Amino acid sequence: MEETLLTSSAAGVYVICPTPFEGDGRLDMASTDRMVEAYLEAGATGLTILGIMGEAPKLAADESQAFVRQVMKAVAGRVPVIVGVSAAGFAAMSALSVKAIDAGAAGVMIAPPSMLRTDDQIVSYYADAVEAIGTDVPFVIQDYPLTTNVVMTPKVIMRIIEQNPSCVMLKHEDWPGLDKITTLRRASDKGEVRRVSILCGNGGLFLPFEMERGADGAMTGYAYPEMLVGVVNLIKQGRRKEAHDLFDRHLPLVRYETQPGVGLAVRKYVLKKRGIIAHDTLRKPGPKLSPETISEIDWLMQRIERSE
Amino acid sequence: MEETLLTSSAAGVYVICPTPFEGDGRLDMASTDRMVEAYLEAGATGLTILGIMGEAPKLAADESQAFVRQVMKAVAGRVPVIVGVSAAGFAAMSALSVKAIDAGAAGVMIAPPSMLRTDDQIVSYYADAVEAIGTDVPFVIQDYPLTTNVVMTPKVIMRIIEQNPSCVMLKHEDWPGLDKITTLRRASDKGEVRRVSILCGNGGLFLPFEMERGADGAMTGYAYPEMLVGVVNLIKQGRRKEAHDLFDRHLPLVRYETQPGVGLAVRKYVLKKRGIIAHDTLRKPGPKLSPETISEIDWLMQRIERSE
Amino acid sequence: MEETLLTSSAAGVYVICPTPFEGDGRLDMASTDRMVEAYLEAGATGLTILGIMGEAPKLAADESQAFVRQVMKAVAGRVPVIVGVSAAGFAAMSALSVKAIDAGAAGVMIAPPSMLRTDDQIVSYYADAVEAIGTDVPFVIQDYPLTTNVVMTPKVIMRIIEQNPSCVMLKHEDWPGLDKITTLRRASDKGEVRRVSILCGNGGLFLPFEMERGADGAMTGYAYPEMLVGVVNLIKQGRRKEAHDLFDRHLPLVRYETQPGVGLAVRKYVLKKRGIIAHDTLRKPGPKLSPETISEIDWLMQRIERSE
Amino acid sequence: MEETLLTSSAAGVYVICPTPFEGDGRLDMASTDRMVEAYLEAGATGLTILGIMGEAPKLAADESQAFVRQVMKAVAGRVPVIVGVSAAGFAAMSALSVKAIDAGAAGVMIAPPSMLRTDDQIVSYYADAVEAIGTDVPFVIQDYPLTTNVVMTPKVIMRIIEQNPSCVMLKHEDWPGLDKITTLRRASDKGEVRRVSILCGNGGLFLPFEMERGADGAMTGYAYPEMLVGVVNLIKQGRRKEAHDLFDRHLPLVRYETQPGVGLAVRKYVLKKRGIIAHDTLRKPGPKLSPETISEIDWLMQRIERSE
Repeated sequence: MEETLLTSSAAGVYVICPTPFEGDGRLDMASTDRMVEAYLEAGATGLTILGIMGEAPKLAADESQAFVRQVMKAVAGRVPVIVGVSAAGFAAMSALSVKAIDAGAAGVMIAPPSMLRTDDQIVSYYADAVEAIGTDVPFVIQDYPLTTNVVMTPKVIMRIIEQNPSCVMLKHEDWPGLDKITTLRRASDKGEVRRVSILCGNGGLFLPFEMERGADGAMTGYAYPEMLVGVVNLIKQGRRKEAHDLFDRHLPLVRYETQPGVGLAVRKYVLKKRGIIAHDTLRKPGPKLSPETISEIDWLMQRIERSE
Repeated sequence: MEETLLTSSAAGVYVICPTPFEGDGRLDMASTDRMVEAYLEAGATGLTILGIMGEAPKLAADESQAFVRQVMKAVAGRVPVIVGVSAAGFAAMSALSVKAIDAGAAGVMIAPPSMLRTDDQIVSYYADAVEAIGTDVPFVIQDYPLTTNVVMTPKVIMRIIEQNPSCVMLKHEDWPGLDKITTLRRASDKGEVRRVSILCGNGGLFLPFEMERGADGAMTGYAYPEMLVGVVNLIKQGRRKEAHDLFDRHLPLVRYETQPGVGLAVRKYVLKKRGIIAHDTLRKPGPKLSPETISEIDWLMQRIERSE
Repeated sequence: MEETLLTSSAAGVYVICPTPFEGDGRLDMASTDRMVEAYLEAGATGLTILGIMGEAPKLAADESQAFVRQVMKAVAGRVPVIVGVSAAGFAAMSALSVKAIDAGAAGVMIAPPSMLRTDDQIVSYYADAVEAIGTDVPFVIQDYPLTTNVVMTPKVIMRIIEQNPSCVMLKHEDWPGLDKITTLRRASDKGEVRRVSILCGNGGLFLPFEMERGADGAMTGYAYPEMLVGVVNLIKQGRRKEAHDLFDRHLPLVRYETQPGVGLAVRKYVLKKRGIIAHDTLRKPGPKLSPETISEIDWLMQRIERSE
Repeated sequence: MEETLLTSSAAGVYVICPTPFEGDGRLDMASTDRMVEAYLEAGATGLTILGIMGEAPKLAADESQAFVRQVMKAVAGRVPVIVGVSAAGFAAMSALSVKAIDAGAAGVMIAPPSMLRTDDQIVSYYADAVEAIGTDVPFVIQDYPLTTNVVMTPKVIMRIIEQNPSCVMLKHEDWPGLDKITTLRRASDKGEVRRVSILCGNGGLFLPFEMERGADGAMTGYAYPEMLVGVVNLIKQGRRKEAHDLFDRHLPLVRYETQPGVGLAVRKYVLKKRGIIAHDTLRKPGPKLSPETISEIDWLMQRIERSE
């Protein structure tokens, strides 16, 4: 199914999917189906599963595979699906990548492990990872220093792109990172590096500016993905003011969701309240929302929904 | 001048002052005077100088002292001034603290050094610091893990408060940190710990909620401090919706200013554009604003000013 | 087989086993058998597999299980075997723990993940881990801050011991850590905490002193485990000078093996040269020994073997 | 006094000096004089002061300057003196560097601050530092990742050397770091980079091998510096076995002294016991030696002194 593989022209909004659990912590397959449907209706041009916000490290190997299959079945080829395969070792990464591609995934996403320090260590790591997953599997670099503690300069990203033809996308969530987009785009415009897709993460916190800097879209998991879709489309249509107006209405909740640690619990609570998933269960270790937090989220949701 | 010392009933908005430099990097005393005046006009109930956002580590010892004296002269006793005395060693901390109090400062602020790990190490560090500055100098705990890499639980903060009667304030900028405020306030309400002032930092990113959780105000440095003052007052008056409306109008720029590293450059640029300081010079190592960044800030400023 | 489970009276030398690979990276089962035999002949009172130096994170889930089964078969009940089950999530930890105990392991070992900071976070983590593996599975706390970046005070370790009756051992490899042993032993002597077994790691770098401070033995993987056995026995017999003389003859190589990163490659090279494993292959990412390094190891081995 | 400045042909043993304190924490100038004398008698070819092991960050600015002057007076031009000027900011670095060179120092040493991550950040930092201290002041790169948390590849070190003609020495204490010496020496042999002096730190833990890899000597602070001098000389004379024999006799104490945190307390205790300094006081925060630790050091000293 080569035609379904991810390419560097990917654009739009790839929604980062949380992994829905039942109240007792088992995978919730019914909510998974419902979530996929809701995201596609919201205008997602792709989905990304088993990322950091998908609680991927908390799944056993067979659970990860079961979840991949369930999502692929629900999507049924309507949009490309990217599977996070970051792992402590290349054997586990390779095993999951094979299963994902076999199940129909369009590509995989790889974040660097936190012990990497020097430019060369980062470049080597991606070379080894590509050897592990195979040079025919399209992959996404996840650049998320706030969580990985690995800082990649534009130069390092360009070296990875140049050395690995199967690198087709950057999930950009450096912070601050706007000038990084500009630098990468300027370099590909000048022919100094192959142009890859840039989709932005970080909860969407800078999305309108990221689009204006040259990003192709968003890959993040805000609980109202229709806002992400709206902003991406408005910016592409040159309707700057409307894009920012839409974005700014959501910014108070976006900001609330980007709180490290507690953010995913917030997101799952909103998704549950919107009827998209049945439970807001997180696997341990994970935060629990206090009553005060819940009432703040409710307030933020009301303000958003009233404004529309 | 014991009557001017900081107490645990401090409240309102203590504006974090940047250190203004001339274009060539020397201290800019004229801008310092103008900035003090602007902040007091904006409604500041106090000022804080030589904090992390005051580029304190970039000043030589004699420059720090000269800046303290200049600010004290400009303030002329109208509001209390807190001086950041965080230092790599207690000898330097003690020396600066003595000079600050002699010059009329109301108290000092101390952030923990990044190598501290365990609860006991943190508690011991503050005990040693108090020994260094003297038990008669009121001090503020700065709880800012994003920058210091030191995580203090409410329990640790309470141990520091209990062991050190001269601890009168918490500069709260944990992230996420709303439940921490609730926990500390509940504990002091129950008499489990002495009540100290809690002023919130983090660029003000969660200010309305922080006030509702029990904070006494803000200690941060957003370039439109009148917004901080307004939000604090509106919440205190129970005018919740107006407080959030005011805050949300500024949130796009608040978010932009809280980008690590580049944030201070953004703030100085806005202060310069508002005529408060003459130059937006940062000392090295520090970021430079790209033309794209400047045009984004201009856009955000226009949207704020148009909305008022 | 409850009688074979690990208890807090465990003592002697639990040799940390590397995972032998073929030249092409597959598990080398023949070398595994030979290694087990060599370690038992050297006087090991137990074995530990799938630890940090066993390249555990580099194995896929099915490989880990295959290796556990192979070792258990080779050991054939002669000594207890501890299996490292540290994992990014509790689902994977639980799955491996169940397989290990089913295969006849005496207990499991758990290192804390590197993001833990506060005392309470560490204590909670072990509570959650015990919930995941079951309260009937004896476990070992691995206290190795140089690698995990998690600092546990004696107080934290005692809280974990007191809250979890299934905690039977501390693998002590804090550095410096001699006073920690003294503190823990003094506390159990006074009845302030249950006495657990303390076996020491860190490549054995401080073994004679650790024994004198009250450790029950070693759990580490030096390539001449007979030295570890000898030192433990001599100290137990009160033959201090002989213990130190024996240890000091090996210290130049012990020190060479404790170099972070390259240490395991050194160890595998020595084991290969001694005929214990067939290849010194490490899985990626891993260092390669330079010719200069090899010649230095050869020199150190000659000096040890000549002195005996 | 240009003829007294440090050059890239520096060699031998530059002893790292602790800063002696009185029992009450004041600078102990009499012990300083005695220590200088003892180190020169031991064969030091240079001295280094105000390094990490000199408790430099614990001194106030005027104390640092007083200590520099005292050492310069005691040395009286007999050997070159290097002054550590690492500081949180360039203003403080520049101020101390000017005072040091004015007082007769041969050069300064600069360690990178712990927040540096990428190759370019490290290279830029040294460019800014050279701008701060002046291009005419010879400087030493301190490469000590265990403490600074900054990892410099050989490539980065070579970029710093090439961009800054005033860089004359590498204080090498990466760990593991033997292959780094080989790589740097091979590069300068091939003319790919200017040859600078390499002196090795890390407490001397790998000194004989470091010399054989191409180092020019040691810059570290072991409490028996005559051993360091002996090993350096024996290796230079090609007397390999004698060098290792001498080194191995001291290795048990060398290892004991290289324990992070407690190491400096150990060193000061030995220096006091040898009559070189009057007190083993450390400034806070610093460890205190337990009775058990003291008795272990005594045992190690006896074994060394008996063997000679």
